Amino acid sequence: MPTGRGNAITDVPGLRVGHVTISVGAVNTGVTAILPQPGNLFQAKLTAAVDVINGFGKSAGLVQVAELGSLETPILLTNTFGVGTCCNALIRHAVGQNPGIGRTTSTVNPVVCECNDGVLSDIQAMAVTEADALRAIELAGEEVAEGSVGAGTGMTAFGFKGGIGTASRRIVLQDREHVLGALVLANFGKAGDLILPDGRRPDPRVAPDAEKGLIIVVLATDLPVDQRQLARICRRAGAGIARTGAFYGHGSGDIVLGFTTRNRIAHQPSSEVSFLERMSDDRIDDAFRAACETTEEAILNAMCAATAVTGRDGAARPLLSDWLRKHG
Amino acid sequence: MPTGRGNAITDVPGLRVGHVTISVGAVNTGVTAILPQPGNLFQAKLTAAVDVINGFGKSAGLVQVAELGSLETPILLTNTFGVGTCCNALIRHAVGQNPGIGRTTSTVNPVVCECNDGVLSDIQAMAVTEADALRAIELAGEEVAEGSVGAGTGMTAFGFKGGIGTASRRIVLQDREHVLGALVLANFGKAGDLILPDGRRPDPRVAPDAEKGLIIVVLATDLPVDQRQLARICRRAGAGIARTGAFYGHGSGDIVLGFTTRNRIAHQPSSEVSFLERMSDDRIDDAFRAACETTEEAILNAMCAATAVTGRDGAARPLLSDWLRKHG
Amino acid sequence: MPTGRGNAITDVPGLRVGHVTISVGAVNTGVTAILPQPGNLFQAKLTAAVDVINGFGKSAGLVQVAELGSLETPILLTNTFGVGTCCNALIRHAVGQNPGIGRTTSTVNPVVCECNDGVLSDIQAMAVTEADALRAIELAGEEVAEGSVGAGTGMTAFGFKGGIGTASRRIVLQDREHVLGALVLANFGKAGDLILPDGRRPDPRVAPDAEKGLIIVVLATDLPVDQRQLARICRRAGAGIARTGAFYGHGSGDIVLGFTTRNRIAHQPSSEVSFLERMSDDRIDDAFRAACETTEEAILNAMCAATAVTGRDGAARPLLSDWLRKHG
Amino acid sequence: MPTGRGNAITDVPGLRVGHVTISVGAVNTGVTAILPQPGNLFQAKLTAAVDVINGFGKSAGLVQVAELGSLETPILLTNTFGVGTCCNALIRHAVGQNPGIGRTTSTVNPVVCECNDGVLSDIQAMAVTEADALRAIELAGEEVAEGSVGAGTGMTAFGFKGGIGTASRRIVLQDREHVLGALVLANFGKAGDLILPDGRRPDPRVAPDAEKGLIIVVLATDLPVDQRQLARICRRAGAGIARTGAFYGHGSGDIVLGFTTRNRIAHQPSSEVSFLERMSDDRIDDAFRAACETTEEAILNAMCAATAVTGRDGAARPLLSDWLRKHG
Repeated sequence: MPTGRGNAITDVPGLRVGHVTISVGAVNTGVTAILPQPGNLFQAKLTAAVDVINGFGKSAGLVQVAELGSLETPILLTNTFGVGTCCNALIRHAVGQNPGIGRTTSTVNPVVCECNDGVLSDIQAMAVTEADALRAIELAGEEVAEGSVGAGTGMTAFGFKGGIGTASRRIVLQDREHVLGALVLANFGKAGDLILPDGRRPDPRVAPDAEKGLIIVVLATDLPVDQRQLARICRRAGAGIARTGAFYGHGSGDIVLGFTTRNRIAHQPSSEVSFLERMSDDRIDDAFRAACETTEEAILNAMCAATAVTGRDGAARPLLSDWLRKHG
Repeated sequence: MPTGRGNAITDVPGLRVGHVTISVGAVNTGVTAILPQPGNLFQAKLTAAVDVINGFGKSAGLVQVAELGSLETPILLTNTFGVGTCCNALIRHAVGQNPGIGRTTSTVNPVVCECNDGVLSDIQAMAVTEADALRAIELAGEEVAEGSVGAGTGMTAFGFKGGIGTASRRIVLQDREHVLGALVLANFGKAGDLILPDGRRPDPRVAPDAEKGLIIVVLATDLPVDQRQLARICRRAGAGIARTGAFYGHGSGDIVLGFTTRNRIAHQPSSEVSFLERMSDDRIDDAFRAACETTEEAILNAMCAATAVTGRDGAARPLLSDWLRKHG
Repeated sequence: MPTGRGNAITDVPGLRVGHVTISVGAVNTGVTAILPQPGNLFQAKLTAAVDVINGFGKSAGLVQVAELGSLETPILLTNTFGVGTCCNALIRHAVGQNPGIGRTTSTVNPVVCECNDGVLSDIQAMAVTEADALRAIELAGEEVAEGSVGAGTGMTAFGFKGGIGTASRRIVLQDREHVLGALVLANFGKAGDLILPDGRRPDPRVAPDAEKGLIIVVLATDLPVDQRQLARICRRAGAGIARTGAFYGHGSGDIVLGFTTRNRIAHQPSSEVSFLERMSDDRIDDAFRAACETTEEAILNAMCAATAVTGRDGAARPLLSDWLRKHG
Repeated sequence: MPTGRGNAITDVPGLRVGHVTISVGAVNTGVTAILPQPGNLFQAKLTAAVDVINGFGKSAGLVQVAELGSLETPILLTNTFGVGTCCNALIRHAVGQNPGIGRTTSTVNPVVCECNDGVLSDIQAMAVTEADALRAIELAGEEVAEGSVGAGTGMTAFGFKGGIGTASRRIVLQDREHVLGALVLANFGKAGDLILPDGRRPDPRVAPDAEKGLIIVVLATDLPVDQRQLARICRRAGAGIARTGAFYGHGSGDIVLGFTTRNRIAHQPSSEVSFLERMSDDRIDDAFRAACETTEEAILNAMCAATAVTGRDGAARPLLSDWLRKHG
């Protein structure tokens, strides 16, 4: 399938991504913000869905997304112990835009996903602040830096340095071009399990560690789909993860969150019945294939783009880019 | 079914409950801590399960409980905007007991459930502090105060004042006495929908409000059950909720969390295979009935025990105890 | 809420119900057919959803309904051992209307739900034939006989005679009247647990039996809802079940199947994108309340309408109508 | 991981597999029976679990397996329109062994999984009889024929001839050897999508067809696991499916059923509490990896073993074995 213009999740029109990287002493962590659309998300929510492939993770907000099929805040990615603080930041951000929250109208559901960067970062420092989270939102733009940035700063994958990666695919529907993009926070996979698309299996030559990893996959699209379809699209990210060599290991949580920019949901609808556009299930294989391909490619992009990071007690992870140079 | 000795969730041996109530100006909120067992929960986790009847809620930690079937922190209840801060407090509490968390071993999954007390409290104040959360844990004891205390301080139910309630039932299994207890944070139900066990329908005579509510039900037992059985027990709390007159309204989330003190799970098991006790499914109806009855009774206990609270702009909710006095 | 014109599931325009009752010797069983709409359901499928409250049951077709959100055959209700034969009948019925099934197009998903009438019928006789199933479809009309008819012939509930019951409620949306109806096959509940709306608890004075029961609830509506909303509506049938005194007992499966006649889904869509109408979640409480109320009332209607049936070895169940006459 | 002795699901001690192949005119179909253990499965049920990756399928019995965590009949695999008849056969088989079923004790839950062999077989003939199903059970032995046999007779995969395949892996736990085996009924995948382990992508050079496929994966083990663990093991079969190049296409259902021969569950338990053995989650990655590897290998084994079958109107599918010979 053809890639989107930038081969990035920001190929979805209006979507922006921002990073705040925190590297101080033994701390190598950060925040990555995904702004699905400009404007007030609380007033015009997005249709969203979740697939929990392996629920060994501490993400916030997923239960409500699954129930209501809607997303009403930016999505923040961070380290495991930054979730609470990022939730607080998203609440303040939403209240800032919507002073009636919790007073004249309902509360807001902050969505924060996480991975444990404890191998390369002192996670006990709980270094992420609300200001960091808000700044990641402010900095968001169309360019997506990959590798050891933002939430990806301290992540590892298959024994190599991991981090943030992205990819996209174009889908034509009724003569109109759409896009499906993935952004991953890759912090999963056992050393030695990585499989490249050409069949090679790069060995990082590190001791297989007992660390607990996770991969977060965020899928974004402008396809006209409803929540049931989105949930099925999310599930196909799992096929992309598997193709990189992982088998959803016990300690490597796998969580997928998807949304579409079509079919927005008004917080206070002007009418009791509204119309939504929905693509035929007969054509949904294109979206399934795109979810699988972009997830796989985004993982590899994260690993190829990752740069060296030195963590606690000099801990480090080799770079896949070095391995590829050595092995032609 | 016979009630436990104290007709409270603390009839489960070793379980303790603590409240911190915060009433300052327009703020009427708090934290309630449930300590399932003494000692280090991270090292000896509890078998746990979840049932999300209506996922309109922002609880933290449920996804991992569902996946791994285990609980490794105390359970904190608070207001919707206190979840992030309570998560941070639980992380620090666990790290304090287990300095290897996130460094030499995995991270920890804080479990925090919430309701929106925005009608009677200024939720935007984000008044709950980490110190409040830790103090609720410290204060935990066998006595369970009910009504307008702890997380229940600012809650409303069926248009009346709501809050914390508890109840328990005894179950004999193979000549040994067990107990199943419920603790609810009741903040749900539309004005006029309440049904008392005798069929009466108390009308609070307040304008039916558009506020978004929730009920959290925590079920605790010392029955020998596995996670599949616990999840099924949790589902029966929904029958108890329904008997009070609610129909799981769109805006009234309903979340049930259950655990047993039997079949503890070692963080670092000494052997690769362990034995667990499991009651026969043929006898599980006793536990189902107890889950239903204790939930219903705990809701009514919460409402009967609730005392008057004055909130933002003089907002208040009538007391069910007043209604009962008036109507004999 | 106001009832529909006939207080029956057939108040949904176009919906018809048919029964075939089989009473021969020790056999007291039958088939009930629900035809959601006239015409070829395979070509114009209905949006549908499922809620499995307690999955102790052998219904066919639910997995695909949950995945694809669509219903493409009539719904048949029968006894537990009649499911296979009714599936075969539905396949032949669909192939008769659509000769391309399994040859030039996909196969078809027969939906058959069941309860165990083994107390009053010799279920081992496997007495239901394909001809019975097809005849129930043919006989379908707007009148819904209740009680000991069709699939309800041999059913029991709360120790009394059970069977088929129905009820409906009207819902106004944007000045247009809609209806939500329930049809139940009631074969559940322990003797002594029944609670009437006035609080009385009729005791059938039969030995509490160890038989395995089930309740099937079919919800039908013409509201403009999508599958996520329908699944949430189905869940509220559980509140109606609970209000009759049941707590979803281990051996009493509880399965809810819902569909709407709006938003039909073409087997071969003429365009890649279509429009569907969706009511606002802000108004969905009406549908939730209707699902709860109609389920509760349909159960009571089934029990009140049930007539005496003598089964294997003279087995019988008392009638709730007799109890009500005696107790004024 | 090392393969089991026979690299087959029958490496699980006591497990047997039987096939009945039906090839008459345009009919190319059959039944495959998996007998998890000798003896009366209804009296001594097996711990079982399900993972529905893509629920586009008509399998019977899955809902109850998921709820109760138990399997009480042999598993039959057949074509889509043979499910009803195979259910009837399993009921009669169980009643034959247990005359009290449906009379003095509960009913039985037949488990039948299916794929659509409509491309190579006249599925409308509904050719499978109860006698065929019972004969597949009778014929069951330790040898597992692969390819175009039993239920696999008319199946296709990735545009090639598909069918039955199997594989197994050994797992050592506390110095004791265990095995996990997979048997697949492979009838899925789009032409051109197949990826061999060495990275090659065999093209069957057939028109990509619109047929609806499915893959059934049955996982069997003698590991001491509970249902939660089994369900997680089942999910990892999805990784194995993905590695063959599939992305869980819309029309290609993917259903996984797993059971363990440890921790049998008595139909009438002699005591109210029993002990079960459970392996530590810390070691469960071995089972996860085995589920992934055996599924992938069983699919390839099915395709490599498949022999030519001529169907309706001369329809045929190329053989992967031919492709491999041609391409060295």
